[in-house]
Amino acid sequence: MLNPDHSADMAREDAASADAMQLDFQTHPQRYRHWKLTTSGAIANLDMDVSEDGAAFPGYELKLNSYDIGVDIELYDAIQRLRFEHPEVKTVVVASNKPTMFCAGANIRMLAGASHGHKVNFCKFTNETRNAIEDAGEYSGQRYLCALNGTAAGGGYELALAMDYLILVDDGNAAVSLPEISLLAVLPGTGGLTRLVDKRKVRRDLADVFCTVEEGVKGQRAVDWRLVDETVPSSQFAQRVAERAEEMSRMSDRPDASGGVQLTPLSRLIKADSIEYDWLGLSIDRNNRNVTLLIKGPDTEAPDNPAEVIAMGDRFWPLALVRELDDALLHLRFNEADIGTIIIRSAGTGDAVKEYDEFLQRNRDNWLIRETILYWKRTLKRLDLTSRTSFAFIEPGSCFAGLLAELLFAVDRSYMLDGQFEDDDTPAATIMLSESNFGPLPMSNGLTRLQTRFLGEPDSVAAAKGYIGREIDAGLAARLGLVTFTPDDIDWEDEIRMLLEERASFSPDALVGMEANLRFAGPETLETKIFGRLSAWQNWIFQRPNAVSDAGALRRYGSGLRPEYDKNRV
Amino acid sequence: MLNPDHSADMAREDAASADAMQLDFQTHPQRYRHWKLTTSGAIANLDMDVSEDGAAFPGYELKLNSYDIGVDIELYDAIQRLRFEHPEVKTVVVASNKPTMFCAGANIRMLAGASHGHKVNFCKFTNETRNAIEDAGEYSGQRYLCALNGTAAGGGYELALAMDYLILVDDGNAAVSLPEISLLAVLPGTGGLTRLVDKRKVRRDLADVFCTVEEGVKGQRAVDWRLVDETVPSSQFAQRVAERAEEMSRMSDRPDASGGVQLTPLSRLIKADSIEYDWLGLSIDRNNRNVTLLIKGPDTEAPDNPAEVIAMGDRFWPLALVRELDDALLHLRFNEADIGTIIIRSAGTGDAVKEYDEFLQRNRDNWLIRETILYWKRTLKRLDLTSRTSFAFIEPGSCFAGLLAELLFAVDRSYMLDGQFEDDDTPAATIMLSESNFGPLPMSNGLTRLQTRFLGEPDSVAAAKGYIGREIDAGLAARLGLVTFTPDDIDWEDEIRMLLEERASFSPDALVGMEANLRFAGPETLETKIFGRLSAWQNWIFQRPNAVSDAGALRRYGSGLRPEYDKNRV
Repeated sequence: MLNPDHSADMAREDAASADAMQLDFQTHPQRYRHWKLTTSGAIANLDMDVSEDGAAFPGYELKLNSYDIGVDIELYDAIQRLRFEHPEVKTVVVASNKPTMFCAGANIRMLAGASHGHKVNFCKFTNETRNAIEDAGEYSGQRYLCALNGTAAGGGYELALAMDYLILVDDGNAAVSLPEISLLAVLPGTGGLTRLVDKRKVRRDLADVFCTVEEGVKGQRAVDWRLVDETVPSSQFAQRVAERAEEMSRMSDRPDASGGVQLTPLSRLIKADSIEYDWLGLSIDRNNRNVTLLIKGPDTEAPDNPAEVIAMGDRFWPLALVRELDDALLHLRFNEADIGTIIIRSAGTGDAVKEYDEFLQRNRDNWLIRETILYWKRTLKRLDLTSRTSFAFIEPGSCFAGLLAELLFAVDRSYMLDGQFEDDDTPAATIMLSESNFGPLPMSNGLTRLQTRFLGEPDSVAAAKGYIGREIDAGLAARLGLVTFTPDDIDWEDEIRMLLEERASFSPDALVGMEANLRFAGPETLETKIFGRLSAWQNWIFQRPNAVSDAGALRRYGSGLRPEYDKNRV
Repeated sequence: MLNPDHSADMAREDAASADAMQLDFQTHPQRYRHWKLTTSGAIANLDMDVSEDGAAFPGYELKLNSYDIGVDIELYDAIQRLRFEHPEVKTVVVASNKPTMFCAGANIRMLAGASHGHKVNFCKFTNETRNAIEDAGEYSGQRYLCALNGTAAGGGYELALAMDYLILVDDGNAAVSLPEISLLAVLPGTGGLTRLVDKRKVRRDLADVFCTVEEGVKGQRAVDWRLVDETVPSSQFAQRVAERAEEMSRMSDRPDASGGVQLTPLSRLIKADSIEYDWLGLSIDRNNRNVTLLIKGPDTEAPDNPAEVIAMGDRFWPLALVRELDDALLHLRFNEADIGTIIIRSAGTGDAVKEYDEFLQRNRDNWLIRETILYWKRTLKRLDLTSRTSFAFIEPGSCFAGLLAELLFAVDRSYMLDGQFEDDDTPAATIMLSESNFGPLPMSNGLTRLQTRFLGEPDSVAAAKGYIGREIDAGLAARLGLVTFTPDDIDWEDEIRMLLEERASFSPDALVGMEANLRFAGPETLETKIFGRLSAWQNWIFQRPNAVSDAGALRRYGSGLRPEYDKNRV
């Protein structure tokens, strides 16, 4: 969290900030400093009560329920636990424990002091967390009611925008606002602009007005402009929130019975250049700036029925693995900025993975299995959105089947050894497709990864589907278009080495931009618009002196000095 | 075209470069320095033969058919003239007069020396010009055949990608390539990445390979990867191109008869703070950084039939006006960077506009009327994509009907005076809708502006449609949601003054980002993906030291020095 002067030595700056910022994404409600999570039957209450002195980094105070990455890590944890630990919760009521202020948005002093890389990754994570709120309502019957018992400003209102229903207290003061443009010279970049016009369908000229009125909009006008769903006098606020929470719960298909699955602490052995989880190993090659994720297939047979899974809890292989993968991706994003390439390998037997995969699909109507599949969906999206190059290497002894084969379609390129390695009798690698590759794990563009891959050859999707459950060797995988290249033993080592060296030689920025464009062919959705259009513009603004120079608005906010703007348009 | 060091005093830099860069977008084939345009019946030949010493600015040579804004202004002119002056042309064959090189793309020394603002606006204009190529094929039956008689690199291949059919000579050397990422640390930002995966539907992993292989791809592999449509040995190249041009011509619905309309030089009186065209006046208020576009309605009755229009040629009011509007927007973008707000006013009678508008719709199957409407479509898109705030002021004496009413739905906000001005007996303003507002002038997102405006209230589109041809006063316009605000005479002056002052006080960058997000609600298309996602990432990269610092790739290209990259990912 250092000086963001982007004309300075950026390598030094980011290396230093990476050192300073070993963030851990594991937490637990008992350790929350900023949120209070309580449940009562079908209703959960998630109350924001940010601790002023609980900032993740030194140098700023979290006043007025403003947030930083530490606050958002807790929010993400709460959202995840509500899915797994509280199947009985159908409505989550989010409110503030502060008087008159729901949430003041991202902490400005934090943003002013953060490196460019931290700003970008902070925004991406907060966006993903807000998408997870929408995912809960859309796919899991757990809806969010935003009880705006005070003003929601900037990122505070953007958090509200991600929820399913917004009730604003009508007390003459409480307002919703997006003051970023007028006060800070940055965008409401946590989905705000996109959700205004694309989700809530606020008329574009009214959105233009709203985004430039520092004090925001309150009362009936907030309803008329579609900014909130309802406004209620203070005296009736609590009662109306309770009523509406009940109404929303009645729309849910979640089970009434309680009895969730606890998300226990991850087992992690963290060393300087490696992390060992139970089912995933990370090993970093700092010279070549890459990391290998070695995924281990299951070592036990798949369960017979969902009841067994509930008894196993988070030791159930697909759930255990996806939690580790999620944690690893977040770790790499925030704590290993100079690692440019993610290499995915696997070890195990395809048949064992296939058994688990078929079990998942067979029992997908069970609430816990549904949650597990949806967690895979969200985590694969997080991989798609991770701005590192991703390669998969498919070698003898690997187990890229079904769920794990999906990783092959998430990466930028895949290399499959054609045949065996010399002096190694491990049989040649095969891959295997399953129903998991044809529907339940869509990308953020709404298509499956195979549909996106074969945008120009829809028949190729059908052809691949014909091979569900069969072992596909390198030759067939190449013909089906499922892998990028299939070198044999003679070429393998050189080709991989040159590939990794070449990739490490390119400008990371150019690769970020290229990958963000090539990965998301086809339709655009609210999500892809947020990550593509909105985030790209925000990242641009985060480089512009009007926002981030010493005389820029982010740095001068609260100083009493007016920001100085270069008035030229580009 | 000055030093792009973005950490320096940008106000000084851009002001200086704006002074240096008074660009004129008016030209004529007889004055072309870089292209040769010839026609023969249904086939036109547009040959690129860039003059090395014909650069638009000092400091670089246009080697190997590389281009700068001057080359692209001529290309744009040729594309426009082919539509209007050559209705008989059904296929445009684009080739190079240079041996072995079709086009080497945007000139790198030009890019390295250009200000950020020039780079952004140069890319936007080249993108619009390539979109105009696609528009000709899709809507006007004039298709482009790219005869790749040599290598097409970077922007050269991106130009090819905009055409309808690509034939690559198979001579063992000629290749298509996008070496931007490996050589220059920037993106193929003239639509390249988007057209690869979304238009030509190149598989994303192959696209990743293609975009990182400096030397590109040639021969059969270029066909297999969908990069070109056909590859032909040198000996058969000319014949095959001719055959294919004939085939493409047979698909066209353009008239066989010749006899187009000449686009004569625009009448412009250019002064320091104003431009007077025949139907459009520009007046700049430098203190408040805004420009007023005063549009004049027709002063003659609409013609009786298309033959009269052909006789009038480019004096036909809708065609004359749209040419002026197009020229004015380009002038403002390139030559008036510090003017942040465009104000649109009109003067005339709505009934006169309505007559012309109805004439256009009644005769839209005539080739010239079709071209005129399509030119309006493209120019309104150019307004949508102009990164300046736009307001419309609707006052007594204005004539916002039909075609001109569409401007009200293109701007960020509209203000309509409710009633008359005191001491002025000009009747209160009304606006009038026509079929023009409900289909023929879609935005780049594929929706009409009213559909985009009422994304959340589709019934409001139908309600508005019910008022076609009727005078709509301020009260009704407000109820129908067609205007933003309707102050009366007492408030008008203060409200407008405060509006303009407030807007001028904001960071231009934040407004650019906000407007780019709020204007394009709804679906995304190839075009919006290019201007939203791809351009936004490119603009970000154009601010990053890896590309633009003294040690960055753009500056070091050709110097013998390797660029130095900050290897951190963000």
